[in-house]
Amino acid sequence: MIARQCDLIVIGGGPGGYASAVRAAQRGMKTLLVERDLLGGTCLNRGCVPTKTFLEDTLTIAAVRNAPYLKGEMKVNFKRIMERKNSVVEGAREGIAAVLRGSGVETVKGEARFIGPRTVHVKTHGGETQEIAGERIIIATGAEERFESGLRVDENAILSTDGALSLGSVPRTLAVVGAGNRGVEFASMFNHLGSQVLLIEKERRVLPREHRWLSGRYRKILMGRRMKVLRRTKVVGAAASGHGVILTLETGWGREEVKVDKVILTGHRFPTYEGLHAEAAGLSVTEKGIPSGEGMQTGVEGIYVVGDAAGPPYVAHKAIGQGIAAVEHMVGADPDGRPRFTPNCVYGDPEIGSVGLSDDEAKKAGYDFRTGTFYLLANGRAGTMGRGEGLIIIVSDAATDLVLGVHIMGPRASELISLGVMAMQQGLTLGQIRKTVLPHMTFSESFFEAALATSGQAIHMLPQAGQDEAEE
Amino acid sequence: MIARQCDLIVIGGGPGGYASAVRAAQRGMKTLLVERDLLGGTCLNRGCVPTKTFLEDTLTIAAVRNAPYLKGEMKVNFKRIMERKNSVVEGAREGIAAVLRGSGVETVKGEARFIGPRTVHVKTHGGETQEIAGERIIIATGAEERFESGLRVDENAILSTDGALSLGSVPRTLAVVGAGNRGVEFASMFNHLGSQVLLIEKERRVLPREHRWLSGRYRKILMGRRMKVLRRTKVVGAAASGHGVILTLETGWGREEVKVDKVILTGHRFPTYEGLHAEAAGLSVTEKGIPSGEGMQTGVEGIYVVGDAAGPPYVAHKAIGQGIAAVEHMVGADPDGRPRFTPNCVYGDPEIGSVGLSDDEAKKAGYDFRTGTFYLLANGRAGTMGRGEGLIIIVSDAATDLVLGVHIMGPRASELISLGVMAMQQGLTLGQIRKTVLPHMTFSESFFEAALATSGQAIHMLPQAGQDEAEE
Repeated sequence: MIARQCDLIVIGGGPGGYASAVRAAQRGMKTLLVERDLLGGTCLNRGCVPTKTFLEDTLTIAAVRNAPYLKGEMKVNFKRIMERKNSVVEGAREGIAAVLRGSGVETVKGEARFIGPRTVHVKTHGGETQEIAGERIIIATGAEERFESGLRVDENAILSTDGALSLGSVPRTLAVVGAGNRGVEFASMFNHLGSQVLLIEKERRVLPREHRWLSGRYRKILMGRRMKVLRRTKVVGAAASGHGVILTLETGWGREEVKVDKVILTGHRFPTYEGLHAEAAGLSVTEKGIPSGEGMQTGVEGIYVVGDAAGPPYVAHKAIGQGIAAVEHMVGADPDGRPRFTPNCVYGDPEIGSVGLSDDEAKKAGYDFRTGTFYLLANGRAGTMGRGEGLIIIVSDAATDLVLGVHIMGPRASELISLGVMAMQQGLTLGQIRKTVLPHMTFSESFFEAALATSGQAIHMLPQAGQDEAEE
Repeated sequence: MIARQCDLIVIGGGPGGYASAVRAAQRGMKTLLVERDLLGGTCLNRGCVPTKTFLEDTLTIAAVRNAPYLKGEMKVNFKRIMERKNSVVEGAREGIAAVLRGSGVETVKGEARFIGPRTVHVKTHGGETQEIAGERIIIATGAEERFESGLRVDENAILSTDGALSLGSVPRTLAVVGAGNRGVEFASMFNHLGSQVLLIEKERRVLPREHRWLSGRYRKILMGRRMKVLRRTKVVGAAASGHGVILTLETGWGREEVKVDKVILTGHRFPTYEGLHAEAAGLSVTEKGIPSGEGMQTGVEGIYVVGDAAGPPYVAHKAIGQGIAAVEHMVGADPDGRPRFTPNCVYGDPEIGSVGLSDDEAKKAGYDFRTGTFYLLANGRAGTMGRGEGLIIIVSDAATDLVLGVHIMGPRASELISLGVMAMQQGLTLGQIRKTVLPHMTFSESFFEAALATSGQAIHMLPQAGQDEAEE
């Protein structure tokens, strides 16, 4: 017996879910959102929002420490940092709840499972159950984290990033396992807080998915801050011991042990549909998740999957873009608005923003490509901040002059990459970009300069500069 | 008797001049640059570079003061701030010299004056004189500052911004006359340093050239920091007196006097051609400077004018764009690459970046326009920084969906406005911008949200929000 009927059921209240629900309500659909935990999902509660709040404070602390014009003793009250983080997260969660409510979306706290292709059984936290029929259904159930075999989080000394965001004090010594985005982010944050940090990566370079030049520079910057960085090193064991953890490391030369106060494990993310009974809707779940096509629709008409639940990359902006695309597909406004170019950002110190192909990838894909590199050493604003360690690399297609990829490291990189995304999404040529006058004393000028550099025409940098970037 | 011959003579070594010279050398022209003072012009020596360096330090000081998690006493060593500023300026100047040298531009320190349409007389600082013939000549002589009648700078208590950048200590009380870009910049910097600041503007709002909403919010933010802001108030007299200055103010209600330790006057800029003898080249100099047309060429073939010398706006990026356009015109690569959209930036705290038309201006120009506003209160990154006071306004043409103007206030506004400039320069529609996935936890997301807001489709903000923005 079906108690209720609505136009759209959204399962999961993270960025993909709430964005879908808001857009559906804007499109006049009677929309119900089911969330079993906290609104905002991983991003708001355990990811983007708390880590960036934490990051801002550590950046201020580092700025104070490095300021030649500030004298005196400053003490960091770690508890206050945690309190501020929690309050920002709560505020953001209230904001999402207000937008959902104000848009006319009904939110139900509970567990949803499919009992048919258009019907969902919801068990609320209050213990009530009801069957709800939806004309359409969006699956936005997110992803879960898995760690390397042999490693288990106890959230006491062996922490996930969740545990790291709930620490009561700054560890004296800290190992971070995995030098992907989250690994370098946590490593740089705790380094600024004063921890002695050991960063361990099994691949041959840190940030293995980024451009090799950025990886190389990033590692040197971290090491310049007295961080120890191990590469080609696997953590095969982590055992709590007394007040610390003993890590067993495996390198090409054998095994060794190190002891640290705390360890943060960064695992890998996988789509999760726990308790969803997707098969009851006729959906096939593969190893890589539920497959989707145009407008994020699954193989079953009317059922869509967005965000982490739709597979990698596991980033909130992709989830938001997919959520909007799904609804626009439903209402026939846009047959396939799936995000075409998804930037990747590292919110450490420094930041990285990247989108599209590296030169290695362009070569592999058979492009006749050009690269233009501009070093922030020659950027005016970077000079005023004493932050000349970064660079911008633009990879372009020699045949069409279109941008194939943009790779940025430095302050504001996560903001600047938006220029690259815009250029790629809109199919702008370097010739067009070169005619754009970007404001002086900004980092964005360097985007224009990198575009000029592809033809040896940068203004604030000599053409030969940068030909000797050390290989990683 | 002509001693030397070259393809291009550039008169003036500021951004317009050095950018022209570098590009000309890249285009294979034998280029000579004449500078009578310091390479880098106003921007590098007295404007952009020193003020932004100063700004960064004051932002750090404000961040420390406002951080709830930092305890202790920090003392600001003002002398160190000045030293850092000077060293950044020197480094930037060396950078420009190196790029000019490395590009093959010959730089001569001296005074240049026309003795014919293609010939310049140069008197070097060493006292040598020579006549140089140039196939083409670029005038990049910059602008000079003039103050309201009755006000005269003594650089002791009555300061220009140059004098303010050379102060030996932080004034206890400070009046800043003029609340244009530079006025609010210096006011917010010295406010952060601890001065008790009085900001005086003769127009009815601060930042009179900016969108009225931004003006209103900016004033309230400054007042929230205990700055006193007077509008519709003219400073008709400034007299040094003992250890301070007595200002005579004229308002609608009459005259009054205030006493402050120091006053910073911000004047108006006008093109300058001092000692150039432009008439010897056959050039006509009007009240607004030397007129120019396609590719920045003046009425005399082969003579170009760029940067401040070409008239307003007096910003370095316009000068650089014009310098490049002039050379591209000479070599026939681009018949008219003059900058079409020049952003304006306020590098205070907060920042402003704006380009194109406000809604008022769009109405006046007869457009059927739309506006989309997104408030940074609803931006995730702003939340993590506790900086929700800003906003983004996009004005678009309802008929074509093209962007007519973008107005941004908040952290990184000077970077973000580049998205607006790109959109306008490339003729992107809001429909295209809305399909661009910008990274989550950045301010740039709000650009995308403001584009959505023009059709009531922002994700993180309710459509009714912002309808009640107080009028200024």
